[in-house]
Amino acid sequence: MINPESFLSTSGRQLQESAIRKMGTVLASGRDVISFAPGYPAPETFPWDEFAAIAAELFASRDANVLQYGPTRGYRPLLDVIAGIMRSRGVNTPIDHLLVTTGSQQGLDLVARVLIDPGDVILVELPTYVGAITAFRNVQATMIGVPQETDGIDLEALDATYDRLRRDGRRVKFLYVVPNFQNPTGLLIGLEKRRRLLEWAERRDVLIVEDDPYRELYFEDSAGEADVRPIVADDSSGRVIYLSSFSKTLAPGYRVAWIAAPPALATRLEMAKQAEDLLTGSLDQRIVYEACRRGVLERQLPILRHHYAHKRDVMEAALRREIGSDVSWPKPKGGFFLWVTLPPSIDAGQMIARAIEEGVVYVTGDAFYVDGSGQNTLRLSFSAPTPERIDAGVARLAATLRGERAARATTAAAAGPESR
Amino acid sequence: MINPESFLSTSGRQLQESAIRKMGTVLASGRDVISFAPGYPAPETFPWDEFAAIAAELFASRDANVLQYGPTRGYRPLLDVIAGIMRSRGVNTPIDHLLVTTGSQQGLDLVARVLIDPGDVILVELPTYVGAITAFRNVQATMIGVPQETDGIDLEALDATYDRLRRDGRRVKFLYVVPNFQNPTGLLIGLEKRRRLLEWAERRDVLIVEDDPYRELYFEDSAGEADVRPIVADDSSGRVIYLSSFSKTLAPGYRVAWIAAPPALATRLEMAKQAEDLLTGSLDQRIVYEACRRGVLERQLPILRHHYAHKRDVMEAALRREIGSDVSWPKPKGGFFLWVTLPPSIDAGQMIARAIEEGVVYVTGDAFYVDGSGQNTLRLSFSAPTPERIDAGVARLAATLRGERAARATTAAAAGPESR
Repeated sequence: MINPESFLSTSGRQLQESAIRKMGTVLASGRDVISFAPGYPAPETFPWDEFAAIAAELFASRDANVLQYGPTRGYRPLLDVIAGIMRSRGVNTPIDHLLVTTGSQQGLDLVARVLIDPGDVILVELPTYVGAITAFRNVQATMIGVPQETDGIDLEALDATYDRLRRDGRRVKFLYVVPNFQNPTGLLIGLEKRRRLLEWAERRDVLIVEDDPYRELYFEDSAGEADVRPIVADDSSGRVIYLSSFSKTLAPGYRVAWIAAPPALATRLEMAKQAEDLLTGSLDQRIVYEACRRGVLERQLPILRHHYAHKRDVMEAALRREIGSDVSWPKPKGGFFLWVTLPPSIDAGQMIARAIEEGVVYVTGDAFYVDGSGQNTLRLSFSAPTPERIDAGVARLAATLRGERAARATTAAAAGPESR
Repeated sequence: MINPESFLSTSGRQLQESAIRKMGTVLASGRDVISFAPGYPAPETFPWDEFAAIAAELFASRDANVLQYGPTRGYRPLLDVIAGIMRSRGVNTPIDHLLVTTGSQQGLDLVARVLIDPGDVILVELPTYVGAITAFRNVQATMIGVPQETDGIDLEALDATYDRLRRDGRRVKFLYVVPNFQNPTGLLIGLEKRRRLLEWAERRDVLIVEDDPYRELYFEDSAGEADVRPIVADDSSGRVIYLSSFSKTLAPGYRVAWIAAPPALATRLEMAKQAEDLLTGSLDQRIVYEACRRGVLERQLPILRHHYAHKRDVMEAALRREIGSDVSWPKPKGGFFLWVTLPPSIDAGQMIARAIEEGVVYVTGDAFYVDGSGQNTLRLSFSAPTPERIDAGVARLAATLRGERAARATTAAAAGPESR
């Protein structure tokens, strides 16, 4: 037999499995485990009947383009619809700025490939989206983390980091941010800070990659349309590359998302996509287009905002009831995630085996930190489980935490006073 | 405005648009142009009613997994179906060898990323599939071409090339081949040659990447099941990475294909796919799975073989009638393509403007040559146009060729006897 390792490329050898995907494997084992791990949309919100009607009409039309190869840029009427969505977000986006991608994961991958050489520096939030970390690591980027405050990335720390890197002779290619209901923290960057962030990028000649999958999912008790204005809306120099998606608002199984970028970059991203998968699924693009054209997306949005706000409420109430004194979290104003900080002595990674034993899973926070920190943090997704499962899962999480503390106390006592 | 060029990566700067995709742009201009350019399946063969019934049932089921995120490896029942297809091709493929990809283009891209560092050497056929060239160029591979004989790649030239590279201190990572009805030449590698190719790869410790999208589309007057046996079927040492697809047999718009590779490589390819697009479309995978399970695929195959053989016949007859004395081609025994060699004085690239003027397009042959040759060759796809359009298109091609010759004669005469 050949030794496959001996044929791998540098990046092939460095590939790592995503922490979220690993949790998926745990779930696949078929036990009754309540999962707060992956950020799945709630399937009970999918507009099944509307999708069924759209698909039936598309197949009945026998329009060859529904099932044929098509342009790499995307289905033209869908691009027009996306330009309309961008306008509704305050961004004027001519068609030649847009590219349909096979999910935003592909968008991140394309951006990385087109911009990053091995060793190039990317700045990211601490913590940040693990899928972005994976895509950026895959092109051998050097990722440097910048801490966040309650209103998002710390601008002083950002500039200090930039300065330090420049003194070391390193060039920063871009800053990656998720301004709205960040994955994993749920944080929202304040409006004033967005403006200053763009000024900073201008001053330092750094691009901003703005990843915005959750912006429509603001919770009306704590955020509104005005709070989620994209950074790109105020960009007059083509410095912001903007990504968004239909995965969280229609359905992720369609794999339809988009990038908006200055035309010269959009052309490069399109060529990279040609080499990567030729085009995004034709049927998927047509269904998404029809769902937009017929108002399905627009009707879904208030339903989804209410649905996820309610689940957030259920999870917060359960956490306060079960383990409120032991853990803390920033209140999510939108999105899918609740970010928990445990007591400093508890390691979420070490605790995961016990959690699975108790029948609950989460994603360990360290997966989102590019600097190896975050051991006492974890991400809970409230989006997919039912309210009853959220209640039961949080009770299991509380039992896990109690068990972990008791075990640590026992170990510490057995080890005696010398132990640290 | 920023200067986007100043932010590009090395591979971002080197990106090139595919020749086939460029032709797509010509067609999009909306003139009456008969296209022999892209290798599109014939839409009139799509099993619309069966697809409609499958989609209706999937949506009616309200099974969340139809629209939800899913495993990167692929929908498990589809992987089982693919293992069955592999068995029918003579290959025993356990599930842990398989990965569903977003079209075979993604498969090629993943293989390139996992195996190739900038400057690594890949051997390819002269000419070879332009999409593979694009994917391999995107990871900055050095591609070296090996000529083909009527029964496929020239083994003596292959080994001489290998020897020369080894003397230069270069390592060859893999040989890329399309053994069945190659894109672009339509050639079939002989069975004895397949066996010797595998022996060669063993002796030289080179991997083989076997790309096999057309194997089911053999034309029964000139090839059969026995002639298309994959190289991987006789591979006992995990040396062959095999790619195939449902794009040519069900529909390309679903973007569902697969890779079969030794488990250690399959795991790496899966991790690379995680970073690239997380998963292949869930609905697409389910529709393809159901089409296989219900026998739609099996019923399609004889229909498709007959359909494309007939179109090949129409194109060959038209070529013989219109321009037979001026051009030559190997008779396609399957697949979508007819590979034309023009008189040495005619440049297919220079002739393309005249062809568009006459209302016909093809892909210039040089796009398929990694060594920059092939100026007097072109690829004609007979798969998508109707027989009437094939007849009309070949007549336009003949007019193009006549016009080109006349113009050259005039230019030569005007330039006088000094001109060469």
